[in-house]
Amino acid sequence: MYRTNTCGELNMNFTGQDVILCGWVQKSRDLGGMTFVDLRDRYGITQLVFNMETNKDLCEKARKLGREFVVQAKGKVKERSNKNLKIQTGEIEIDVLELNILNRSELPPFTIEDETDGGEELRMKYRYLDLRRNSVKNNIILRHKLSQEVRKYMDSIGFIEVETPVLIKSTPEGARDFVVPSRMQPGTFYALPQSPQTLKQLLMVAGFDKYFQIVKCFRDEDLRADRQPEFSQIDCEMSFVERNDILETFEGLAKYLFKQIRGIEFKEPFLRLPYSDAMEFYGSDKPDLRFGMRFTDITENVKGHDFAVFDSSEYTGGICAEGCSEYTRKQIDELTEFVRKPQLGAKGLVYIRYNTDGSIKSSVDKFYTTEDLMRLAVTMKAKPGDLIMILAGDKKRTLSALSELRLEMGTRLGLRKKDIFIPLWVVDFPLLEWDEETKRFYAMHHPFTSPNPEDINLMESDPGKVRANAYDLVINGVEIGGGSIRIHDAAVQKLMFKVLGFTDEEANEQFGFLLNAFKFGAPPHGGIAFGFDRWAAMFGGQDSIRDFIAFPKNNSGRDVMLDTPAKISVKQLAELQLSIGNKK
Amino acid sequence: MYRTNTCGELNMNFTGQDVILCGWVQKSRDLGGMTFVDLRDRYGITQLVFNMETNKDLCEKARKLGREFVVQAKGKVKERSNKNLKIQTGEIEIDVLELNILNRSELPPFTIEDETDGGEELRMKYRYLDLRRNSVKNNIILRHKLSQEVRKYMDSIGFIEVETPVLIKSTPEGARDFVVPSRMQPGTFYALPQSPQTLKQLLMVAGFDKYFQIVKCFRDEDLRADRQPEFSQIDCEMSFVERNDILETFEGLAKYLFKQIRGIEFKEPFLRLPYSDAMEFYGSDKPDLRFGMRFTDITENVKGHDFAVFDSSEYTGGICAEGCSEYTRKQIDELTEFVRKPQLGAKGLVYIRYNTDGSIKSSVDKFYTTEDLMRLAVTMKAKPGDLIMILAGDKKRTLSALSELRLEMGTRLGLRKKDIFIPLWVVDFPLLEWDEETKRFYAMHHPFTSPNPEDINLMESDPGKVRANAYDLVINGVEIGGGSIRIHDAAVQKLMFKVLGFTDEEANEQFGFLLNAFKFGAPPHGGIAFGFDRWAAMFGGQDSIRDFIAFPKNNSGRDVMLDTPAKISVKQLAELQLSIGNKK
Repeated sequence: MYRTNTCGELNMNFTGQDVILCGWVQKSRDLGGMTFVDLRDRYGITQLVFNMETNKDLCEKARKLGREFVVQAKGKVKERSNKNLKIQTGEIEIDVLELNILNRSELPPFTIEDETDGGEELRMKYRYLDLRRNSVKNNIILRHKLSQEVRKYMDSIGFIEVETPVLIKSTPEGARDFVVPSRMQPGTFYALPQSPQTLKQLLMVAGFDKYFQIVKCFRDEDLRADRQPEFSQIDCEMSFVERNDILETFEGLAKYLFKQIRGIEFKEPFLRLPYSDAMEFYGSDKPDLRFGMRFTDITENVKGHDFAVFDSSEYTGGICAEGCSEYTRKQIDELTEFVRKPQLGAKGLVYIRYNTDGSIKSSVDKFYTTEDLMRLAVTMKAKPGDLIMILAGDKKRTLSALSELRLEMGTRLGLRKKDIFIPLWVVDFPLLEWDEETKRFYAMHHPFTSPNPEDINLMESDPGKVRANAYDLVINGVEIGGGSIRIHDAAVQKLMFKVLGFTDEEANEQFGFLLNAFKFGAPPHGGIAFGFDRWAAMFGGQDSIRDFIAFPKNNSGRDVMLDTPAKISVKQLAELQLSIGNKK
Repeated sequence: MYRTNTCGELNMNFTGQDVILCGWVQKSRDLGGMTFVDLRDRYGITQLVFNMETNKDLCEKARKLGREFVVQAKGKVKERSNKNLKIQTGEIEIDVLELNILNRSELPPFTIEDETDGGEELRMKYRYLDLRRNSVKNNIILRHKLSQEVRKYMDSIGFIEVETPVLIKSTPEGARDFVVPSRMQPGTFYALPQSPQTLKQLLMVAGFDKYFQIVKCFRDEDLRADRQPEFSQIDCEMSFVERNDILETFEGLAKYLFKQIRGIEFKEPFLRLPYSDAMEFYGSDKPDLRFGMRFTDITENVKGHDFAVFDSSEYTGGICAEGCSEYTRKQIDELTEFVRKPQLGAKGLVYIRYNTDGSIKSSVDKFYTTEDLMRLAVTMKAKPGDLIMILAGDKKRTLSALSELRLEMGTRLGLRKKDIFIPLWVVDFPLLEWDEETKRFYAMHHPFTSPNPEDINLMESDPGKVRANAYDLVINGVEIGGGSIRIHDAAVQKLMFKVLGFTDEEANEQFGFLLNAFKFGAPPHGGIAFGFDRWAAMFGGQDSIRDFIAFPKNNSGRDVMLDTPAKISVKQLAELQLSIGNKK
C-alpha cells in the first residue's frame, strides 16, 4: 500500500503519528520560509508543510509541484497554529519528511474547484478531471449510496434482483429502439431494452412474485435537455397484488430512502390525487405541491358581463398569489409576457389587485363592478394583499398555461425550496390517448396496463373515458416513478388490442412470446419503475441528472470524452454484412 | 393483497388460523371422497384438502383444476394425519372453504418438476415455465443473494459502485465488439463494452480510489459451450496499491462470500502459485488443487535406455495415481485412448504398476530393469499399489495432455468433489504472447498491464521472458477472476506499445482518450474482474452458467423464447441509413 491514511481522516487524535498520504496537489502556497501544499484525495484535503530552514532540498522540491501532480508524502502529524475549522482535517498538518512524485500532470484545462471556470463541453471532454471536483464526486457517491439502500430495502422485504438481458427483441410500439446487428445471423438485429417491461411480466408468469432490478434502459430519441440515450431505472414487479399493495410497498421504499439519504421522516401517508383533480386544480399530472395556489374555475362566474374574452371561453380560471397585490406594472407586464410565450400561448393575463387597504382594482374594471370583483375574490379565497391572475381560453391549453404561471409564481415567491419534499401519488390516469393524426387510440402507458375494473364496461362504448389502474409517484413537480396493475386476463387483453386497432396477427407478431406465456397460468400482477438518475438528482438537490452520471452523453447523444459514436472498420461492416447508406 | 400467507411458511404454529393462499397447481390427487391439491409458489408447497362429504360443489371444482392453474384458496390450517416431514409445510394442510381460479393454464409442454422431461431447447423456449422448477429458481435466488453480499462487502470496505456507460467506443484490440448504429450520426456506431477496463482506469484518474461494479459485458464471439454473448462481471479497481494489496482485498471478498453463501470458512491465506510452477506441475494456468498428482519431470531420468520415444523427447513427465496399480488392461486402454484423442494428441501412454506386493511391472519392461523402474518410482514418490502414467513429446503439448489425464484421473477417483473448494492465486503470468501467424507479440491480458518491475529491463532485449504484474483467482480448476497492476508511467506505456508494434498514431487512434487522461496525474492503480455468472454457478455446485442466468441465449446466440435476433422494419433501417448486404 502506498499510504497509511487518507487525506480525510487525520485530526488531533493523530498528532505525533508517522503517516504516509497520497493524493493530488490541490494548491501550493509559498510563504518565504515555508511552503504549504493542499493534498487532495477522495476523502478530503490535508495540509502538507515544508520548511526551508529544516530541509531546504525537500522544500524546494515541494515548490516545484504543479497543480494535480500525484504525490506520496511521508511525515508526522502535528497541530496547526492556524486552524481551519471548516474542514475535518483543519486542526492538523503534516510535517513532511519525504516526498515522492508518483506522477506529473499537465496543467488541467479548467480549475479543479467547487466553482470551476470550465464550460460544459470542456468539462465533458475531460470528465475524469471534472469528477475530481467535490460537487460532481459527491453526486456519484450519493448515487452509490442510493443504489445500496434501494437494494438493502428491497432485499429486506423479500424482493429478488433478477438481471434481464440487454440483447432483446425490437418492438415497434413505444419509443425508438437502439438495435444491434447480429453477425452470426446477418440481416437480423437485437434491440436494447427501452425497459424490461415484458421480461419482468414473464418473471411474474415464472412465479418470481417479488422482482426488482436497477437496470440500464435505452431510448433512441431526439434528445431534449436532460434526457440521456441510456439511463437507469429501478424496475419492480409483484404478483397477487392490487393497486393499494403496490402503493404501500413502494411508499415504504420512498420513505426509507428519504430517511437514509436525507434524514427526512414522513409520518403521514402520501397524498393520493386522481389525475382528473391534478389536471383541474394544478393543470399538470405532476403537480408541485410544495405550495398551494390551486386553480379556481370561474368560467361561469365571469360570463355575462359583456367581456367577450370570458363570454366566449371554454374555460376561465385563476390563481391567487399571496401578498402580491403591490406588484409593479413592470412585474405584471413580465408575467403577461410569460404567459404569452408561444409554448404557453395564452392571449393575455387578467389581474385583480386586492389591496391591503381592502380596495380592489383589476385590468377589467370596464366590465366588472367592485362588487363583482369582491364576489370573485371570495370565490378564490383571496385576502387583502393578494394578487389574482386569470387566464381564459381553450380548456386544455389554458390549464397548461395556468400551470406554468403557477410554477413561475412559486419560483418568484421562493416557495419551491430544494430541501422541502412533498411526494404524492397521482392515480386513475386515462387508459388511452386519442391521436388526431393517425385517428386511433394509443395506450397512455403500454398495452398491458389494466383498465380500472369499474370502467371495463366502457372499453368498447367510450374508450376515452376508461381510467387505467395506473399510478405515478410525483415529488416536487417531478415524476419519479410510474406503473400499473397489468392485464392478466386473456379476454381483457383481447379487448385492449381491439380498442388499439391491433389485429390478432399484429398482436402476435409483436407480443407473441408474452401472449403465449400468459396461456400458462399468469398470476394477477403489477409493478412500477422509478427513474434512478432522476431520483439521485432530486436527493442531491439538483434539477439536472447529468452530474449524477459518471460518464454522460451530450444532447446529441455523443460521448465527447470517448469520442463516440465513431466510424467502425470496413472489416467489421463486412462481418456484419452491412453497408452504410440506404439502398437506392 | 390476494393472500395472507405464502405456500412455504405455514406449520403447526398456524393450526386453526384462517388463511388465504395463492399459487400454481403442482398436482392434484383424487382419492374418492377426498381431493388433495399441492399448491406451489416461490416459497414452497402447501397441501389443500377438499372433502366430497362436507362440500360437494367445492370438491368437484377442485377436481377440475388442471396442472399450473393459478388459484386462490381460503381455508383453515389443520394438522395433517399423514405427515410429510421432508418439507417445511408437511405437518399441516388447508381445509379449503373457498376456491377462486385466478387464471387457467394450457397443459405445459414439459413437467414442472425437479427432474423434468423437457429437453434443453424446449425448456429455453418456455423459459418462464422452466424458471418455475425449484432447481432453476433456486439458482436465480442464489445469484440474487450473491450480488447482495458482494455489494454489502464492497461497500463495507469503502468501495463505490459506479455505473459506466453501455454505449461506448469500438476498439479493434481484443475480442469482437457488438456495435450499435447511431441514427443521429448516420454511418457511425457505438460499441457495447467487452469490459469497462478503460473506463475504470479513467475513474482511477478521476480519484475514485476504490471502484466496483456488477456490470453486463458483451463479446461477439463464436460461442463455445457455456459462453454467453452477454455476461456479468464483478469489476473492481483500486489506486495507490501494489499487487499484494489487491490480492488481500479480494481474498477478503472471496472468503466473505464462501462464508455467507456456502458456510465455509477459510482460515489460511490462499496459496499463491507462480504461473511457471502451475504449468510445470499441473500443465495448466488454472490447476484444480482439490487433489495432488503433481507432475514429475523425468525427461533426463529416462534417457539412455535405447527407448527412442523417451530418448528423443523434449519432455517426459508422469503422474502417480494412488491405489490404481490393479487397473485392468481395459481401463488402461481407455486411458491410452483418452490421451490419444486429437485434442490431446499424445502418441501413447507408458505405465508402471507398482503392485501392492512390492513387485513392479511396466509397459516398457523391454528397456528398463526392475531397478530402473524402482528408481523412477522413488523419484515419483509412488507407493506400492500406485499406478504411474507417463507421457512424452513436445513440452507444451505434453504438459497440456498430462493436465487432461490428471483431471480425468481425479474425476475417475472421485477426487473432484462438488462441496470442496480449493482457491489459489496464480501469479507472474507472462506479459506477452508471441503469435506465429502475424509474427508479433500480443498482450496476454491487455496493453495496460504492468510488467513485473524486476523484468522491465528485459522489455526490449527479451520481451517473451517478461513477467506481468498479473494474477488470476482459480478455484477447483476454474478461473473465477483475473487482473493486474496497470501501467501508470507514460514511459513504460510507450515501451509497451513499442513492443506490441503500435506506432504512436495507432496507439493514439485506439486509446487516445486514455493516454490523454494519463497526462493529468494518473495514480498507481490496479484491479481485478470476476466472472459473476461463473462464480454463481460454482457456489451452486454446477458446471454450466446457463441455469444461473434468467433468460440465457443458446449456443448460436439466439434467445429462442423472445425469438431474437430478428428482422427489423424497413423504416428502422432507413432511419439508420443502413442496408443489408455488403456493398459490391
